Amino acid sequence: MDVEIIAFDVFGTLVDWRTSITAELSRIGQRAGLNADWAAVADAWRSRYGPTLAAVRRGEREYQPLDALHAIMLDEVVAEFGLQALTEADRDELVLAWYRLRPWPDTVPGLTELRRLHILLPLSNGGIGLLTRLARSAGMPFDCILSAELAQSYKPDPRVYLLPSGYFDVRPERVLMVACHPGDLQGAKRAGLRTGFVPRPLEWGAEKGAPPAPPDTDIVADDLVALAALL
Amino acid sequence: MDVEIIAFDVFGTLVDWRTSITAELSRIGQRAGLNADWAAVADAWRSRYGPTLAAVRRGEREYQPLDALHAIMLDEVVAEFGLQALTEADRDELVLAWYRLRPWPDTVPGLTELRRLHILLPLSNGGIGLLTRLARSAGMPFDCILSAELAQSYKPDPRVYLLPSGYFDVRPERVLMVACHPGDLQGAKRAGLRTGFVPRPLEWGAEKGAPPAPPDTDIVADDLVALAALL
Repeated sequence: MDVEIIAFDVFGTLVDWRTSITAELSRIGQRAGLNADWAAVADAWRSRYGPTLAAVRRGEREYQPLDALHAIMLDEVVAEFGLQALTEADRDELVLAWYRLRPWPDTVPGLTELRRLHILLPLSNGGIGLLTRLARSAGMPFDCILSAELAQSYKPDPRVYLLPSGYFDVRPERVLMVACHPGDLQGAKRAGLRTGFVPRPLEWGAEKGAPPAPPDTDIVADDLVALAALL
Repeated sequence: MDVEIIAFDVFGTLVDWRTSITAELSRIGQRAGLNADWAAVADAWRSRYGPTLAAVRRGEREYQPLDALHAIMLDEVVAEFGLQALTEADRDELVLAWYRLRPWPDTVPGLTELRRLHILLPLSNGGIGLLTRLARSAGMPFDCILSAELAQSYKPDPRVYLLPSGYFDVRPERVLMVACHPGDLQGAKRAGLRTGFVPRPLEWGAEKGAPPAPPDTDIVADDLVALAALL
């Protein structure tokens, strides 16, 4: 596959948001004297993501960077779970927890290997500042940081998928989008990119498992180290 | 100085454009059967940069990425020096020579040291694609790539200097702009950034020397390794 640029989904595909966010909710919640099923709180926070971003894409909600939407969604989850003992400062700290998510064990070695021959960049709904700080914290070696923020929209808006080919002056099929979410790969495919699927069966905990790859996926690999070997 | 982000000018400050471009002009020119004072051709090409970008900032010329302006300025220099034997392919190759400029000897060790405690990014008139490929080629370790392209303008437009504080949600004085060009630092200072000067006396060859730092520069260092020691 003759690709020059590999673009990565981040939350779920490169980093284990659920374990990291559950741990931070638990730590900060207990500090505030609260008890809860913190994994369920993390899942509820993340579950609001899809519908909230879809409202922005449909123009029903004004574009705001993901940090601002994370704060709004957290307030909703606080109300849902009765966690009002979390102060404004606690909530701000939790929004920043998305800057320090743990990478999957294959992420850093896989990216390091893939970077030898390809330009690597995140293509995420997280903002430029969030993604840059997360890449530093997790040690993820990117060549540049691209974000849906640069299109003032969110994936799967095709304008987001066309950011790499635009900035690098290459045809969209010279860009490989790698993700663990079928909807992300379908959006990339519609925009003319090549697509690569890696399953992340632990993204939503041990019971959920991974969805299947879309049938027209160009390349499927067990993880990023395996993807590097295939390319 | 309490800064979180260090933004770098690139052409001249981090990389020795003149030696690299002179060598490429000489190689490709001789291949086309031409003889010329290739350093003078390189200087002429680069000298058109300031006035051409100023015309964009004044709105007299439509915004185009730097690659396109490099091509236009090269055509002008070809006419000026009688180098019409350079084909379209030769000229395209010369525009891409800006992707592979040689870093100054202190650049990579200095950036590596500075990156331990700060977020590093280029803030250059080069485009995202150019800067990313140049960073890979020269081994410059940035955390993210910012470019005047993101403001659809050129330095010293204040909108360019305010890109890092905007994307990273920090006050402008938490950003240190490092450059060897007084005008660049004066523009950054007007926009509220901190400023750091490093002299590059060889930028225009051995005879020209470096200009003095602006009087209100926050920090002056002999090179980037010295800057890392001062910070």
